[in-house]
Amino acid sequence: MDSSEGSLRNALSQKQSAIEAQGNAVRALKAAGGSKAEIDAAIEALNGLKIEKASIEKQLQAVVSGAGGDGALNRESFRQIVGNTLERRLFYIPSFKIYRGVAGLYDYGPPGCAVKSNVLAFWRQHFVLEENMLEVDCPCVTPEVVLKASGHVDKFTDLMVKDEKTGTCYRADHLLKDFCNEKLQKDLSLSSEKAEELKHILAVLDDLSAEQLGAKIKEYGITAPDTKNPLSDPYPFNLMFQTSIGPSGLLPGYMRPETAQGIFVNFKDLYYYNGNKLPFAAAQIGQAFRNEISPRQGLLRVREFTLAEIEHFVDPEDKSHPKFSDVANLEFLMFPREEQMSGKSARKIPLGEAVAKGAVNNETLGYFIGRVYLFLTRLGIDKSRLRFRQHLANEMAHYAADCWDAEIECSYGWIECVGIADRSAYDLHAHTEKSGVPLVAHEKFAEPREVEKLVITPVKKELGLAFKGSQKNVVEALEAMNEKEALEMKATLESNGEVEFYVCTLGKNVLIKKSMVAISKEKKKEHQRVFTPSVIEPSFGIGRIIYCLFEHSYYIRPSKAGDEQLNVFRFPPLVAPIKCTVFPLVQNQQYEQVAKVISKSLTVAGISHKIDITGTSIGKRYARTDELGVPFAITVDSASSVTIRERDSKDQIRVSVEEAALVMKDVTDGLKTWQDVWSAFPHHASASAED
Amino acid sequence: MDSSEGSLRNALSQKQSAIEAQGNAVRALKAAGGSKAEIDAAIEALNGLKIEKASIEKQLQAVVSGAGGDGALNRESFRQIVGNTLERRLFYIPSFKIYRGVAGLYDYGPPGCAVKSNVLAFWRQHFVLEENMLEVDCPCVTPEVVLKASGHVDKFTDLMVKDEKTGTCYRADHLLKDFCNEKLQKDLSLSSEKAEELKHILAVLDDLSAEQLGAKIKEYGITAPDTKNPLSDPYPFNLMFQTSIGPSGLLPGYMRPETAQGIFVNFKDLYYYNGNKLPFAAAQIGQAFRNEISPRQGLLRVREFTLAEIEHFVDPEDKSHPKFSDVANLEFLMFPREEQMSGKSARKIPLGEAVAKGAVNNETLGYFIGRVYLFLTRLGIDKSRLRFRQHLANEMAHYAADCWDAEIECSYGWIECVGIADRSAYDLHAHTEKSGVPLVAHEKFAEPREVEKLVITPVKKELGLAFKGSQKNVVEALEAMNEKEALEMKATLESNGEVEFYVCTLGKNVLIKKSMVAISKEKKKEHQRVFTPSVIEPSFGIGRIIYCLFEHSYYIRPSKAGDEQLNVFRFPPLVAPIKCTVFPLVQNQQYEQVAKVISKSLTVAGISHKIDITGTSIGKRYARTDELGVPFAITVDSASSVTIRERDSKDQIRVSVEEAALVMKDVTDGLKTWQDVWSAFPHHASASAED
Repeated sequence: MDSSEGSLRNALSQKQSAIEAQGNAVRALKAAGGSKAEIDAAIEALNGLKIEKASIEKQLQAVVSGAGGDGALNRESFRQIVGNTLERRLFYIPSFKIYRGVAGLYDYGPPGCAVKSNVLAFWRQHFVLEENMLEVDCPCVTPEVVLKASGHVDKFTDLMVKDEKTGTCYRADHLLKDFCNEKLQKDLSLSSEKAEELKHILAVLDDLSAEQLGAKIKEYGITAPDTKNPLSDPYPFNLMFQTSIGPSGLLPGYMRPETAQGIFVNFKDLYYYNGNKLPFAAAQIGQAFRNEISPRQGLLRVREFTLAEIEHFVDPEDKSHPKFSDVANLEFLMFPREEQMSGKSARKIPLGEAVAKGAVNNETLGYFIGRVYLFLTRLGIDKSRLRFRQHLANEMAHYAADCWDAEIECSYGWIECVGIADRSAYDLHAHTEKSGVPLVAHEKFAEPREVEKLVITPVKKELGLAFKGSQKNVVEALEAMNEKEALEMKATLESNGEVEFYVCTLGKNVLIKKSMVAISKEKKKEHQRVFTPSVIEPSFGIGRIIYCLFEHSYYIRPSKAGDEQLNVFRFPPLVAPIKCTVFPLVQNQQYEQVAKVISKSLTVAGISHKIDITGTSIGKRYARTDELGVPFAITVDSASSVTIRERDSKDQIRVSVEEAALVMKDVTDGLKTWQDVWSAFPHHASASAED
Repeated sequence: MDSSEGSLRNALSQKQSAIEAQGNAVRALKAAGGSKAEIDAAIEALNGLKIEKASIEKQLQAVVSGAGGDGALNRESFRQIVGNTLERRLFYIPSFKIYRGVAGLYDYGPPGCAVKSNVLAFWRQHFVLEENMLEVDCPCVTPEVVLKASGHVDKFTDLMVKDEKTGTCYRADHLLKDFCNEKLQKDLSLSSEKAEELKHILAVLDDLSAEQLGAKIKEYGITAPDTKNPLSDPYPFNLMFQTSIGPSGLLPGYMRPETAQGIFVNFKDLYYYNGNKLPFAAAQIGQAFRNEISPRQGLLRVREFTLAEIEHFVDPEDKSHPKFSDVANLEFLMFPREEQMSGKSARKIPLGEAVAKGAVNNETLGYFIGRVYLFLTRLGIDKSRLRFRQHLANEMAHYAADCWDAEIECSYGWIECVGIADRSAYDLHAHTEKSGVPLVAHEKFAEPREVEKLVITPVKKELGLAFKGSQKNVVEALEAMNEKEALEMKATLESNGEVEFYVCTLGKNVLIKKSMVAISKEKKKEHQRVFTPSVIEPSFGIGRIIYCLFEHSYYIRPSKAGDEQLNVFRFPPLVAPIKCTVFPLVQNQQYEQVAKVISKSLTVAGISHKIDITGTSIGKRYARTDELGVPFAITVDSASSVTIRERDSKDQIRVSVEEAALVMKDVTDGLKTWQDVWSAFPHHASASAED
């Protein structure tokens, strides 16, 4: 807890006590018939105390607001303004709107859909093509066995409580979180100890068990938000959409919660396709599903979303990356575990240093962090509101070697948009075990290597005599011993001649004698090493990235007359939904003809554009396209040459009709920047055209 | 039925009777102790008849085989060869293979996934960009109300029968179809009448009701194929994957069976986005789902697939298309309804003629037929195995104005890959009705128009006195009359003074008197026309198109030594999964360095490629990439220049290292053909390199 907040809460409660004491003093004076001067002085002191209390309250209000009060209000009104623009221009649409929609489902309308397809095309170029990844495309419908192996059937749950009268469902942690935040922000009389307690709950919220959550909800008397009815105990709700495959009803299936499993189950074929060589990466773009209990946070927490996932398979003994030097000099905001624990902030760290010092576990993980940074910033994500945060030990799965989230700051706070995890061999192990198909890699040795191998040889005849029908269980248990257990047994047998041995399939100890088993270490020649590869998984929430991009790209500028606020999205040409517009300056057949000629050449060049021959003023037409984030506008004001206007600078150049499409191609393909063409073509000073 | 088949069946059955008669004659002769000469002569005659019968059988076998016997065998073995290559090279993989897979679910492996993404990118370019369509992206999870309105909840079914002992499910029509085909092909003793009957069943199979199907299954004694157990009566099974949205279990949902509904429910917003102007088209690419009872036909009938759908909204009174002249001169195989009914074959018809003569209902439908033809043939679909077949009257939905399928011939026969339907106003009407939100367009008149309008004015006072509590029902029923009903009532009231009138909400007739309602036609000035647009829907089954493309692109050529059959896919560069490979001719550090430089410049140019520095022979490396359909191979055989080999001609040119990527860019972007570069660069004669 912020020390100033704590001391203010203490000061406030002391001041409150002082006011009460002084109030009593005033009353006592009056009852005792004190002199007017005495009473007036006491009242004045009381008023003084009240003024002091009000001042402390004001300070405290300011402190707690910083964490979510006024700031949150500003953020919320910003979000509303951006959201209104996005929805009005159909970047997105609540799905099935004419039927009053479904919470957590959104459509991308035309410009949103174009942005999405540009983001995905760039993702393919930046990752799949440049890194020679093996892209696959697997179905969403997934049989239960696959998701049982991956752990989703058992563990992909949120804790839920039900309104005991209406049956309405809520996420238990959300209710507790809302309660704590509300108390902290609005209840100034909260003691500093109580405030400390609530903050602690917020910090450990994700770690609370169903029992702990339930106890807190009871303790604080939290009720259903809409009805104030009592709530049930929390219980787990599986977040997968369930269905049934085929007509029999006997094959349960789910809509996949992630695309990764489709890659893991294909590991064997992909490894073969890659010439039985490691490392290699497979990738998949596709829909994933999460049946949220009560979706919140608009486009950030939805029930269906597009994921782009990479599974990079690597030898666990060598996680170096040949291209790491390409990204080692990048420097950006990183937030290692230690800095988070010691209450520091994210700071700029050169990536090479973070890997060298071991803050990032290995080069391959580091390489992907760097590539993700380049991907996001090239899309237009603001560098200063992007950080890579390392998972704390308690956030990570037990098998994970290391995990970093690319978090982007938006009006909802810092949002996880890309997870980059070293998941070790967990997933391949799990599917090997469940399917019985070994998902492993081989390293052929240049020369055979001599290795010491443990050899356990049960003497079946002796065991048969001793254990009869249970012989098989005992043999299997002996053979399943690991090296440590076997060597201990060997030592005991040599010293004692016999040993107690627990056979789990029998559920009891048996007595093993020296004659029953031979244990030795033998030297063997091996020609190859067989191992389960580690997997490093960068997983991109495409919808979240796009939403943050919307917020980062949005700004307002006044109209020239100063009477209007104009919305602009500063999308780079790479992601802009439409690359340019073509306007005749005035309605006129000749200009329209020229506009159509240019439109045709833009189509041939594959540049998405819009032609606007309405008679609206040129200023209004610019404003309309700025609001869609269109980076360039071609205005036809003569039969031989046209002007091209850049959205953010509003600068204009003049080019011939023939050159227009070529210039557009150069600046939208990224071969040239606006600065390049600005210095290559005559400038057009427009006094009247704009606004 | 083929007349020669019929006469052969007749001849065969006559011959069989003759053989029986002659057999009896022989036996009678023997019993009567006829002379050896007599008996021998009779036996010879019998043998003669048997030889004649065998000859007829052979002819008949040949005739029925033509429709599915040997031909089918050849097609099946071709399919198997292509399929083996596709699966071995991971164009596709049965999904969840390590868990023994799920029928009807397939993954695209790396080359298949690349082909798919190329096909979709070209679809976007060819349709969305060139036609300025509004692309949207809606969720797969769809609430029941939407699919209730569209009719899918009630009608998206197949008829199913169950093995009464094991519960295994079968499609009823499949069992009947298999029975008929099997009989026709294998039972030569079938009478020509019976054969005629079975062929008729095959022709009307899709129109049979549950009762009719059940009766036939009973009549023919069809049993469960695996167990020979009796079958249940057929009953409808809904083919949508069902699920539940949210945790309450109260909001049923389905995985969408098509993407179109997402567009229809957004009509109002999209119309507004388009400046409230018609015509415009919206488009969507996405997954669709169909929970097949028992999937067959491999990649053609699957449980999850990618659709690309266009909904072109147009004024029903004006279905002309401004760009129709661009496609009017195209000439390709068309199969109008009349030609099908009269037993003719598809023939080449100029599209302009088909529209002018009314074979194709309207210009807009014709325009899309032409655009679909261009799309498919540019992908590499063989023109001679592509036809546009018009739906017969009984195939079309009652509301459809016209419907043409783009059918592609492959080893499974002629397969519907694109449906192009004029669905009139059906879908928008259905959602208007269910949602209460009018999905309509407006045509503003330049000048107000005078129109005659029917005005029905119930006289409430009179009605109230007569019907008391039922007054409201009567008023509503009167107001709901259409023009014809109202004018009839008016005429009857004027002649009789009263009329019987059925009020459906009361479920009975009431007596309406002249004083109770005024009916008149009035002239009114109208400023606009309000109407429900028609929709023309081209709907593409992307997976089917890709599968047919695989078959059409596949060929075998002998290796140079003649000892091997080499597989080749002749994909055009547009769809090829990898555009080129880069090989050093021999293993050598300098050549490898050059190969890496070229690889880098290809990456910068965005050209997907593969670098192969294994020491395998160049012939083997060519063979490997031919099998993936890679159109070009760059072989590094010096430090300054390289050869580029074209896959199908095996011709090679020589270009400098610097030019290599540029030449590749030109030929893969379609800016130049191989012929262009072949005439621009020196040729390389390779005696030894190939094979």
